[in-house]
Amino acid sequence: MTQVRVAKTELLQFATSCFEKAGARADIAKTMAQSLLWGDLLGFNTHGMRRLPYNVKQLQTGAASGSGEVTVLNSRAAVETWDANALPGLYVAPLAVEKACEMAIHAGTGTVVVRRCEHVASLAAYLQIATDKGLLVNLMAATPAQSSVAPAGGVSRVFSPNPYAIGVPTSADPMLLDMSFSVTAAGKVRQAYDRGELLPWPAIVSASGEITNNPKVYIEDGGALLPLGGGDLGYKGYGLCLQSELWTLGLSGYGRADAINDGEQNTLFVQVIDPEAFAGKAAFERVVDDLLQRCKNAEPIDKNQPVRIPGSGALAKLKEQAERGVLLDELTWPRLQHCAEKLGVELPATLGL
Amino acid sequence: MTQVRVAKTELLQFATSCFEKAGARADIAKTMAQSLLWGDLLGFNTHGMRRLPYNVKQLQTGAASGSGEVTVLNSRAAVETWDANALPGLYVAPLAVEKACEMAIHAGTGTVVVRRCEHVASLAAYLQIATDKGLLVNLMAATPAQSSVAPAGGVSRVFSPNPYAIGVPTSADPMLLDMSFSVTAAGKVRQAYDRGELLPWPAIVSASGEITNNPKVYIEDGGALLPLGGGDLGYKGYGLCLQSELWTLGLSGYGRADAINDGEQNTLFVQVIDPEAFAGKAAFERVVDDLLQRCKNAEPIDKNQPVRIPGSGALAKLKEQAERGVLLDELTWPRLQHCAEKLGVELPATLGL
Repeated sequence: MTQVRVAKTELLQFATSCFEKAGARADIAKTMAQSLLWGDLLGFNTHGMRRLPYNVKQLQTGAASGSGEVTVLNSRAAVETWDANALPGLYVAPLAVEKACEMAIHAGTGTVVVRRCEHVASLAAYLQIATDKGLLVNLMAATPAQSSVAPAGGVSRVFSPNPYAIGVPTSADPMLLDMSFSVTAAGKVRQAYDRGELLPWPAIVSASGEITNNPKVYIEDGGALLPLGGGDLGYKGYGLCLQSELWTLGLSGYGRADAINDGEQNTLFVQVIDPEAFAGKAAFERVVDDLLQRCKNAEPIDKNQPVRIPGSGALAKLKEQAERGVLLDELTWPRLQHCAEKLGVELPATLGL
Repeated sequence: MTQVRVAKTELLQFATSCFEKAGARADIAKTMAQSLLWGDLLGFNTHGMRRLPYNVKQLQTGAASGSGEVTVLNSRAAVETWDANALPGLYVAPLAVEKACEMAIHAGTGTVVVRRCEHVASLAAYLQIATDKGLLVNLMAATPAQSSVAPAGGVSRVFSPNPYAIGVPTSADPMLLDMSFSVTAAGKVRQAYDRGELLPWPAIVSASGEITNNPKVYIEDGGALLPLGGGDLGYKGYGLCLQSELWTLGLSGYGRADAINDGEQNTLFVQVIDPEAFAGKAAFERVVDDLLQRCKNAEPIDKNQPVRIPGSGALAKLKEQAERGVLLDELTWPRLQHCAEKLGVELPATLGL
């Protein structure tokens, strides 16, 4: 099985139809499809259309709701707290960013905390909703039913591998960053394990306290992922993991003890900032452009690898795939074929590679 | 020269008198003294009374203003932007946290961005202003005239070693974290260099791109500090350094190109969050207590070193020093003696160790 390319509008239409067939309301289906598409466009193909069958199944089993609305639990001038009632994260996350943008334009910042939405896939997919409006955005997500990262000095799994993303508008391309507060993501450990490889650096602490790059220790033997900073400086990543879970689970009032049976449901913290409410957009862009230029001008370690601005690789993929079609790899295309067949939805046409 | 202890009220009075003699208005002098005292109480003695002569000198030379007010450049319901007009950071930082608390109680969050304040010393000193009110707080500081940290993949100094601090109220002691987004702080590199020691881990990239733990490479040979994550995962710390400088310098509209002659002046981002505006304080505390308990319950790597909550060591020092007196070490006490003599201020009585 080889990889294929599909035009983005056709892929969007296909995924929308699949979600509708699986029971999602039309607007929910379309937003879900856009969120997965955006993951692929930016090159996060583990968090793009490859997840279509998972999201279809969640809708079909009722684990994710295909209709209904979020419940606003509380609000003030600059903040809202939502219960997503198991609506898909692919639908709720962009909604939360939009709401935070609205509040930011009025109050200077806008913050939305969301509990109980189904898995959001890639946080990077939602950043440009804000940066396209000239706004800064900061996203955190936790998975309260999952534990995989140890606190510094410990070997027990406490935190989920909480992703963290920021988006910043500039006078040209936005800066986009999507990372985790653990040394590595659980998916990368799984991938190395499946391939029988060691990880490129020590990322795991064993149940007996040894630091290792052997994925088997995590997958088979109950080890935990190390927080960012690893064996020496893990107190920094530990602090950032704590922040992520306190700003999400804490503010949502829905913690690990409440979420035991929640599977992959996420809790989100979304914050948008309007630079116009501070020193103004023009001054912001001038300072940002100058700082990013200083980074680009930095002497590189490897003469052939200039220092990059976070997100520049993803944006190059976005442009290329918007023109030439979205690349769907040998793991993804067969899954879409399977969904098409099962749901009776016509597959999109493939383009040359 | 040995170390001494001094009762905290006497130390506060002494430092207040020194700052008044150096030209600070009474309220400014008192707040400055409190900020330094709080650094010592929490055990950050490099950022406590040891800096008294520096702050006295800044007032005397006019590098820091002993009077005047901050200028509010802009405001909305949840945000304010200040120009501190070279007022001492020791005075302006607590003022900004107080203002952010006020806004948070109304709007849900409160954010204050401050440009051009003199050096703030220890960010940790300001967290309990918010946590004592049951509020979360997040502080970032940059020093736009300083460059010491390289972007990932680069060897040039671009960022200052931007500190980052968070404070979180719980049903008992607050969680307090104060860290930098570089592998290590510049002060620790200087200390290792002065002692002729190597750093405990690779923290520096040389001008030719080698990663090293030799402080000489930074102090003498123009190397740069590595961002958190080091040689392998420095793109994470690089992203966090960018966030710190964009959320401070960017929003303040006052960047590195503007600040060339600003010495140690800081730019601050202060954000306070009221959990009552989200799912409520009771729910917040329940989730926070549960999460912190999970950390404390984690199996430790070393059986004799249980997993600790960030800030627990600092709070133990605070309690001990509030009772037994503040410990002033052999570097600090002679400096206070010198200030007392020069300014004609009576030294506080010393207590037994």
